Amino acid sequence: MLTTRKATQNDAGLIATYRHAMFAEMGRSDPAALEEMRCNFVPWAERMIADGKYVGWIVEDGGRPVASGGFFELEWPPHPLDPAGEHRGYLLNFWVDPGYRGRGLARELVREALAESRRRGIRVTALHASDAGRRVYEPMGFKSTNEMFYVESAKDSATP
Amino acid sequence: MLTTRKATQNDAGLIATYRHAMFAEMGRSDPAALEEMRCNFVPWAERMIADGKYVGWIVEDGGRPVASGGFFELEWPPHPLDPAGEHRGYLLNFWVDPGYRGRGLARELVREALAESRRRGIRVTALHASDAGRRVYEPMGFKSTNEMFYVESAKDSATP
Repeated sequence: MLTTRKATQNDAGLIATYRHAMFAEMGRSDPAALEEMRCNFVPWAERMIADGKYVGWIVEDGGRPVASGGFFELEWPPHPLDPAGEHRGYLLNFWVDPGYRGRGLARELVREALAESRRRGIRVTALHASDAGRRVYEPMGFKSTNEMFYVESAKDSATP
Repeated sequence: MLTTRKATQNDAGLIATYRHAMFAEMGRSDPAALEEMRCNFVPWAERMIADGKYVGWIVEDGGRPVASGGFFELEWPPHPLDPAGEHRGYLLNFWVDPGYRGRGLARELVREALAESRRRGIRVTALHASDAGRRVYEPMGFKSTNEMFYVESAKDSATP
């Protein structure tokens, strides 16, 4: 029997483990960077859940977690698509246990997260899609954007 | 004689005007939405400049503004590309007066903004590129991302 509940601060470790698994499956497989990310994500998620900026959902099968998804509230300048808004929604950490795929769980979790944007009066909700994720998001109305990014290489960075 | 200076809170109106011109040139031309965005952007920029989250640069020709660009610090979860980081840089409001194009001013402003990311120890800096902007950003090392977004239509939104 599948049930969905809201994540609490106690779930930060579980969400970090799913985030790690998600990036590993996408081929981001430098084990040291993934493990460092996982460790640092735990206190970040605890803090953001406590602040109400991160909202997560956990799907359980008889009490055992099998899928998860998250919403994060980003600060954003007023934009033509939301001219009175100061936030965007951001969806992250969508993960379904391989044994539970193909049942629409990801789509249900995305619906929960879009409802969270709507409750907050947020018009624009973004995410970064894996190839597998794109097949879920496109039929739900998500469109590719014109985002570009620049990634500083570790050796050039001012980070100590 | 062209000079570049940091923007202050007093420049919020100028930056909003440039932001409006930029979106209008990109074809985001619903005049009511653009004007609402411009009005709401002014207090947002004043607040974010005061908080140190927005940094802007203004290029002047003999004291007359002719180009501008901005950096904004986004909260971001630890990510494989920056596993100890909690922020991304976001570049916005890049605008060059039509009479001053083709002189490399946009590129200089992007360099300023990337240096701001570096000073803050930020590894990943994103932007949304117009077709014209893409020709500036690609040679500087920016790559297209897999971002998608969902835009709530006004009538479905819970926003009053």
